[in-house]
Amino acid sequence: MALDHFRQAGLRARKEELERAARFGADHVFLFTGGLGDGERGLVAARRRAEDHIGRLLELARRVGVKLALEPLHPMLAGDRTVITSLTSANDLCDALGHGIGVVVDVYHVWWDERLEAEIMRAGRSGRLLGFHVNDWLLPTRHLLTDRGMMGDGIIDLKGIEVMMRRAGFVGGLEVEIFSTNWWARDPGEVMEIAISRCREIFGGPSHASYLSRVLDSAMTLRITAA
Amino acid sequence: MALDHFRQAGLRARKEELERAARFGADHVFLFTGGLGDGERGLVAARRRAEDHIGRLLELARRVGVKLALEPLHPMLAGDRTVITSLTSANDLCDALGHGIGVVVDVYHVWWDERLEAEIMRAGRSGRLLGFHVNDWLLPTRHLLTDRGMMGDGIIDLKGIEVMMRRAGFVGGLEVEIFSTNWWARDPGEVMEIAISRCREIFGGPSHASYLSRVLDSAMTLRITAA
Ligand SMILES: [Zn+2]
Ligand SMILES: [Zn+2]
Repeated sequence: MALDHFRQAGLRARKEELERAARFGADHVFLFTGGLGDGERGLVAARRRAEDHIGRLLELARRVGVKLALEPLHPMLAGDRTVITSLTSANDLCDALGHGIGVVVDVYHVWWDERLEAEIMRAGRSGRLLGFHVNDWLLPTRHLLTDRGMMGDGIIDLKGIEVMMRRAGFVGGLEVEIFSTNWWARDPGEVMEIAISRCREIFGGPSHASYLSRVLDSAMTLRITAA
Repeated sequence: MALDHFRQAGLRARKEELERAARFGADHVFLFTGGLGDGERGLVAARRRAEDHIGRLLELARRVGVKLALEPLHPMLAGDRTVITSLTSANDLCDALGHGIGVVVDVYHVWWDERLEAEIMRAGRSGRLLGFHVNDWLLPTRHLLTDRGMMGDGIIDLKGIEVMMRRAGFVGGLEVEIFSTNWWARDPGEVMEIAISRCREIFGGPSHASYLSRVLDSAMTLRITAA
């Protein structure tokens, strides 16, 4: 959902999407603000506008009974994908807007942040941890969007972040989300097996009943059971 | 200066470099912590180690009368270039270590940060703003290291950040720093002219007596006068 869709016609379309999500029994719907407007510079105005639009969207979402999920993205995506680039901003926004909106923690976007543990705990205390995406940060990283790593191939302290999530009260599953031309080119079955075995190695096995895997394509979500 | 140089032999070499800088009458010497150790994951231990090492280096620097300059780098460089990825961390570290250490603000690394203005002001109040690097963030950005933009070609609110710097008391010049395979491939004289004319357009003219330009190569620093 990009900002330029946030006009009246956009809001109507969003309303239909939210209603469809409600019919499917979805717990939450992801929301990305998009980046700057055409020719716009700097994030201050774009952030104010995004907050305003999210507030209006939240009213619709509450009416149909679906939560909104804010996933802060890496600061390298601030220009074109989202203006919410830290868990701190996402938590601040949730505090300001009240119930019905929460956050999704993707290790790729937030692992570098010195505020990480404090903000995960803060989100947990407010009962707004809606999801947990895992993957890894490769050295070197060759592309801003499509060079994520398989868990264990990079430098993120994945287990450390999972411990924070659990201590903060998150009880959901892990979602494997590896946007990567490298992994997309490989045999899907093999990729799945590797992803599951890495998850077992890093996070421990049978206690995690299921992993949601989106290693194959951003448009394809496969639910696999690894119990 | 990478972390793995921070051993005894490394410290001796650093001491010689600092003494040389003092002989040249340098105001400050840049310090980058490097990233993680081999096989290391997560930033907590690396950050503690970096702080410890910077403290020891600061003693040497004070003895020879040269300041240390911390330049926080973009979070996308947290793994391999530095563990200090925000002005907040740099300011915290300076507060902890006392006099003789300051910060350099490079718009490329910090433009996305919602804490930007507050942290520039904080650095200014402590008299520790040592430098100001300008360039631009391109959409799309094709490489993490070598795709910076010429001022005005991207989406950073450069004038807005310069106003913050001036309000915070920074009286130094602007340093143009464009690591870019694209600009490196062009005629150096032409690049200089474009850089200077963009600076005049964006920041205003004769009040800025000089621009330091490092558009050509990371190893080459040219002082050009644009008064
Ligand atoms: Zn994600
Ligand atoms: Zn710089």
